[in-house]
Amino acid sequence: MGFNIVLIEPEIPMNTGNIGRLSLASGSTLHLVKPFGFELNDKRVKRAGLDYWKHISLFIYESIDEFFEINKGKQFAYLSSHGTQDYCAIDYKDDMFLVFGKESVGLPKEIVSENSNFVYTIPLYSTHIRSLNLANAVSIVIYEGIRNIKTR
Amino acid sequence: MGFNIVLIEPEIPMNTGNIGRLSLASGSTLHLVKPFGFELNDKRVKRAGLDYWKHISLFIYESIDEFFEINKGKQFAYLSSHGTQDYCAIDYKDDMFLVFGKESVGLPKEIVSENSNFVYTIPLYSTHIRSLNLANAVSIVIYEGIRNIKTR
Repeated sequence: MGFNIVLIEPEIPMNTGNIGRLSLASGSTLHLVKPFGFELNDKRVKRAGLDYWKHISLFIYESIDEFFEINKGKQFAYLSSHGTQDYCAIDYKDDMFLVFGKESVGLPKEIVSENSNFVYTIPLYSTHIRSLNLANAVSIVIYEGIRNIKTR
Repeated sequence: MGFNIVLIEPEIPMNTGNIGRLSLASGSTLHLVKPFGFELNDKRVKRAGLDYWKHISLFIYESIDEFFEINKGKQFAYLSSHGTQDYCAIDYKDDMFLVFGKESVGLPKEIVSENSNFVYTIPLYSTHIRSLNLANAVSIVIYEGIRNIKTR
């Protein structure tokens, strides 16, 4: 049992490092789609991911098109602060792809509009906040998926 | 409805900043117990917490003893990688205190041993990992608490 965590064009090395650590901890595979806002050998990626990085199941794609071409036919859920369905309503399945956008602006608009039935959000309870930290958002969704599947 | 997030002697400014952002997003109150591994006005705390910091409901304590003295009679759950109960088994209640230790070594041993019936853990699925990033762990527990209470 495991999920696929997809980061589309991540910008902040510490977040990708922390999500690498989370991928390993949760038995997930990590998919990173270029361009990145940093070099993957940036010491801040490795520091956040500690010495675990080499153990992560990792795939890297040159573009969004390449990612979707290689993984066509898979099941996807998209996480966006513009989503209207609660992330707890995702129909979590083993080997599912959970797709997250970049820190500054989230997922590309075309991906959100073309997949509107599969776009989910994490509810926020303050008008002062527009989004969570990316690594925190990924953590919440992945562990809810694990809990959901375990308790069926 | 809201939880109390307690960080005992946090060490890394970015984590406390991200947890501040999460506190606000989740409608939680943040309790920080000194000594800290940084100055609270460190720019890395504010950067991670963005410009939300001033809106956070925040309490600061000079020591662990002061924290427990002021909050005696409240309901507590303790999160530790040494816990044996799953965090999903916490009897989440409104106004509950969810207590997390420092990044390097977790909660003080005395707190874990004196409260052993109320110590919980987040399951990890890799032998290469001993713990999650602190902000990620707090995120997972708080949003599970919200989900748990909402779906009763």
